[in-house]
Amino acid sequence: MSEISRTAAVSEVGEHVLIGELQRRIGEAPGVIVGIGDDAAVVGLSEPTVAVSTDVLVQDRHFRLNWSSANDIGHRVAGANLADIAAMGAMPTSLVVGLVLPPTTQVGWVLDFLDGLAQECESIGAAVVGGDLAAGDTIMISATALGDLQGREPVRRNGAQPADVVAIAGRLGWAGAGLSLLSRGFTSPRVLVEAHRVPKPPYLAGIHAASAGAHAMLDVSDGLLTDLGHIAAASGVSIDIEAAAVPIDDPVRDAASAFNADALAWVLAGGDDHAIAATFAPDTQLPPGFTVIGRVHEPDGDGPTVTVDSVARPDLRGFDHFR
Amino acid sequence: MSEISRTAAVSEVGEHVLIGELQRRIGEAPGVIVGIGDDAAVVGLSEPTVAVSTDVLVQDRHFRLNWSSANDIGHRVAGANLADIAAMGAMPTSLVVGLVLPPTTQVGWVLDFLDGLAQECESIGAAVVGGDLAAGDTIMISATALGDLQGREPVRRNGAQPADVVAIAGRLGWAGAGLSLLSRGFTSPRVLVEAHRVPKPPYLAGIHAASAGAHAMLDVSDGLLTDLGHIAAASGVSIDIEAAAVPIDDPVRDAASAFNADALAWVLAGGDDHAIAATFAPDTQLPPGFTVIGRVHEPDGDGPTVTVDSVARPDLRGFDHFR
Repeated sequence: MSEISRTAAVSEVGEHVLIGELQRRIGEAPGVIVGIGDDAAVVGLSEPTVAVSTDVLVQDRHFRLNWSSANDIGHRVAGANLADIAAMGAMPTSLVVGLVLPPTTQVGWVLDFLDGLAQECESIGAAVVGGDLAAGDTIMISATALGDLQGREPVRRNGAQPADVVAIAGRLGWAGAGLSLLSRGFTSPRVLVEAHRVPKPPYLAGIHAASAGAHAMLDVSDGLLTDLGHIAAASGVSIDIEAAAVPIDDPVRDAASAFNADALAWVLAGGDDHAIAATFAPDTQLPPGFTVIGRVHEPDGDGPTVTVDSVARPDLRGFDHFR
Repeated sequence: MSEISRTAAVSEVGEHVLIGELQRRIGEAPGVIVGIGDDAAVVGLSEPTVAVSTDVLVQDRHFRLNWSSANDIGHRVAGANLADIAAMGAMPTSLVVGLVLPPTTQVGWVLDFLDGLAQECESIGAAVVGGDLAAGDTIMISATALGDLQGREPVRRNGAQPADVVAIAGRLGWAGAGLSLLSRGFTSPRVLVEAHRVPKPPYLAGIHAASAGAHAMLDVSDGLLTDLGHIAAASGVSIDIEAAAVPIDDPVRDAASAFNADALAWVLAGGDDHAIAATFAPDTQLPPGFTVIGRVHEPDGDGPTVTVDSVARPDLRGFDHFR
């Protein structure tokens, strides 16, 4: 088979050739019984249950082609999806992708995107096992990840109990700071911009938290306070965060200082780092990487709330895609 | 919880309210361990393997809002995906949906779409278990279906053997004729237009064919000759179709006659009915609903081909989304 041109438009090479390239580049992986190229893929699990999560990302809303490379976007799409699986306590095993592309999209962009997608999957032992392509006016990407609970109970949002500690693992505020800097026309500090382009979800923290008996868990994608609000509402509890306990990492603190921004706002309201937030019984030995940042308590008369040092912070609500 | 207005725009009600409505409308189903509203859904299977397939559909390319109702589109998106699962020999169990919507989309459209999606899933005992929403300029829908092989081997495209019979189950040419009529400005015969709007894939035929030992199988979505070409290429065989054996159903024949069209072209090149095509050893007792239309033979010097009465028909190739 001859190499296809990276600078050709996808309309020049056609759908089936492109699917063949995907198949050739991504290949097979352990646990994959049937891979790309059939009506459906077939994936092996260690037990007869499967975790499944889907995400859609839209050009100029979730990513910009001048801010992120195709490889970055591939990492980011996979990361967002795999983090959802890990946040249930499941090990990510596989991912399928739906890709809507303008017919003028260069083949090289698509191949780089798929490389990023596959690399992010491989980083946690998962594989891209299928996909679909269609033409459209802008790039839209859907990804669906599958996970293997390996005998663990799924950790839901609705299990938080009064007296639980609230703990987080992974970065907070890095991607939000990076996006904020890009929006103002800066491309440094590089470590923050890279955190927006390619988040580093702490996948194994989710699995370790499930093994440690976490009561409730989710991945932080809309902003810490907003996402803790989902746990509070689903569990019928209130959560209070101790501001002084929330880790503000040096790059976030330094950038806030340099750019006259509020580091705590980036940390409490910024999304897309895909940190893991969980609640545990107070006597639990927390897995490595988790930091206690607050506590669960009975809701007062106003119902479930999330407060910071006992104060509501509606100014730090997260992002709603339709508003 | 108060009813939300069907005529409100999705931007007025917001993402989380809409996800709550999905959750409330679709509910739980047997086999669903965790449904909509968590980071991931968790689905039970009868054995530790899962079949997974994904499709993306784009407004004005795969469907038109003035040709199909939201409910129709929901049925069609689910049907396309569930048929892929059945064509592997797996029983569809669940489906997740990614929905990109212009912020001005009416809430009623979304609810009707989800009703259609859920109804199609229920028709084969599956359930909608998760989803994601995002804003975009046009409607884009991705769906990923999961299936349970229930101990059967997956039936792939690459297992056809010389001397196999080629058989089909389900409708051929109905949806293609319906689309052709809609394109010319007609809305009747209603049965053909409806076949385009809401295909009726023969899901159980796929499962019965797998149980009967089908060697190769797929669902016909790009056109019969094109899709049989995928079996031929993957299996390294050639296929000859006997034109006189291909069923041309009365509505297709009558419409072709009335509109001066070629009924056989609709049947051999039209897609989107999601018929099941399979090859079986010649002594196999075919499952109910299957009709033999041709035979597999060794490829000649030109490699794998698909012919009709021994003649190549490049004029009846199917659709490529990028060309």
